[in-house]
Amino acid sequence: MAAAANGSAGGVDTREEFRRIYGVLKEELLRDPAFEFTESSRQWIDRMVDYNVLGGKCNRGLSVVDSYKLLKGANVLGEEEMFLASTLGWCIEWLQAFFLVLDDIMDDSHTRRGQPCWFRVPQVGNIAINDGIILRNHISRILRLHFRGKPYYADLLDLFNEVEFKTASGQLLDLITTHEGEKDLTKYNIGVHRRIVQYKTAYYSFYLPVACALLLSGEDLINYGAVEDILVKMGTYFQVQDDYLDCYGDPEFIGKIGTDIEDYKCSWLVVQALERADESQKRVLFENYGKKDPACVAKVKNLYRELNLEAIFQDYENESYKTLIADIEAQPSIAVQNVLKSFLHKIYKRQK
Amino acid sequence: MAAAANGSAGGVDTREEFRRIYGVLKEELLRDPAFEFTESSRQWIDRMVDYNVLGGKCNRGLSVVDSYKLLKGANVLGEEEMFLASTLGWCIEWLQAFFLVLDDIMDDSHTRRGQPCWFRVPQVGNIAINDGIILRNHISRILRLHFRGKPYYADLLDLFNEVEFKTASGQLLDLITTHEGEKDLTKYNIGVHRRIVQYKTAYYSFYLPVACALLLSGEDLINYGAVEDILVKMGTYFQVQDDYLDCYGDPEFIGKIGTDIEDYKCSWLVVQALERADESQKRVLFENYGKKDPACVAKVKNLYRELNLEAIFQDYENESYKTLIADIEAQPSIAVQNVLKSFLHKIYKRQK
Repeated sequence: MAAAANGSAGGVDTREEFRRIYGVLKEELLRDPAFEFTESSRQWIDRMVDYNVLGGKCNRGLSVVDSYKLLKGANVLGEEEMFLASTLGWCIEWLQAFFLVLDDIMDDSHTRRGQPCWFRVPQVGNIAINDGIILRNHISRILRLHFRGKPYYADLLDLFNEVEFKTASGQLLDLITTHEGEKDLTKYNIGVHRRIVQYKTAYYSFYLPVACALLLSGEDLINYGAVEDILVKMGTYFQVQDDYLDCYGDPEFIGKIGTDIEDYKCSWLVVQALERADESQKRVLFENYGKKDPACVAKVKNLYRELNLEAIFQDYENESYKTLIADIEAQPSIAVQNVLKSFLHKIYKRQK
Repeated sequence: MAAAANGSAGGVDTREEFRRIYGVLKEELLRDPAFEFTESSRQWIDRMVDYNVLGGKCNRGLSVVDSYKLLKGANVLGEEEMFLASTLGWCIEWLQAFFLVLDDIMDDSHTRRGQPCWFRVPQVGNIAINDGIILRNHISRILRLHFRGKPYYADLLDLFNEVEFKTASGQLLDLITTHEGEKDLTKYNIGVHRRIVQYKTAYYSFYLPVACALLLSGEDLINYGAVEDILVKMGTYFQVQDDYLDCYGDPEFIGKIGTDIEDYKCSWLVVQALERADESQKRVLFENYGKKDPACVAKVKNLYRELNLEAIFQDYENESYKTLIADIEAQPSIAVQNVLKSFLHKIYKRQK
């Protein structure tokens, strides 16, 4: 693994320091002079932030630190640099928390990261909507406090704004494609799937961490259009893996039981099946996809087997890897290549 | 009225041009290259924006144009200036739409501006949460498109971010004070009321339009702390009027029937009553405030009469006016005085 070879990714020291910086940022937010906190509103925010920002694996946040190290070619960062890189990493974790709090309400979900969704916690309910807004606002407060004087401050605000806009637009596409009106599988195709995945997941999960590291290194993002394209493709590939693992992954290993078929998701698998099914197979899909009944789910899974989707996924995975490596090696900067390869090797052939 | 004397406020020409500019901004958003719209997502956004941004009186938005004219001492603006002032005005209308869409969900409201709340429209439901986010994101998109090159671009982003943060924090305070746990009137006092009102309403309704006009005039907001204080006080007075009219206004005239008593609101009236009530009167409040039963509401209103709250409000109104005029006339700039007086005279002794 490129980042591990560099001695940093997920290193215990980095992770501990990253976690310590969370505490600093949260304390600053709880003492923000832009609002006169009461005791109970301060306690509310304290608990709400811990509940929603912590508890994940922090892959996105830590990857800002790792990427920045690779860009600088440094194994260890100075205190100030480590603080700023971690702060941007935490901003991404806050952004993710904001999306998850609101997505869970919209999807009527029950659990998240092994605990009840925030809106299901007693006394919270729909206040969670406003809490989501506050989480988003925390990012602006953090950026303003620590980056206001930097030459790239406006670029940083633009970056977070644009990525948030793309993510919310992808979420809209998902919501109106998956939920609007009666279920109609003819709406699902690879173009629709690519668009949802790219906007809803790839930009904030893959492009944003690297873009943060680039800005911190003094780079102008205008020169990194090709890097953006590669990361967005990588994010799309990542989500296709997710769709695959939802059906074929080991529930013990991935930590959840997939329900994409029951939930009528525009999954990469159903899109592949629709492309390859003959008329009678299509009927099976139309009649059984999106139903809770285990017998219906089994029929869909049988059809996936008939159509050999496992092998089709392996081909897709190998093909994606080859293309991505070729694109990465066409990049002029070796440091940038290292960043991109580090991301790719973290996800290639992942089992969870 | 200062602004009317200047020949501009609510002028038919200004209003028509302002409305035309809305169409321009919306078309730009529907062609935003940062997202690949599908036909159905473009239609969704088109309808959603019209439904939620239009339909209000546009007082906040138009007041950016009026304030900017007063600051420049000009009756008529050039085309470019009118466009930029109106664009900032529309950003405030978009901000308001974002808050209202989400507040209506949190308050479980039924109607808004004479039509069903957006989340109650068939096929919308909880997608309205994401639509609220998109409305907020539209502001960033509009500002980026039209103000990216301006020297005050970062200040503009900071301004909208800070005002949004204050508003969401005020909303949190309102939500946890009014809704959390069992009803407990001992939590209500003038300090709590002032804080909710100031953060939830005053900053975005009164300070934000003037701050936008100041930035557009090339001013640095750091020099306008006293103006901010005056506008926030004015916004607080405005909300106290609102609380008063909810109980004593003419429903025909204000266009709705007040339900603050039933809804257990931390209204200025109940706070005044609590301050003045003896033990037996307090018992009446504790037993009847926040109940749907019309007999309970009547008992609360009777108590308000006993305590002479109408006269107390008239005193408050006169006192607020005197203080505000004195503060305004202490301002060094006559143009700034005109802006502030224009706001004050629009709301002083209003009946709706």
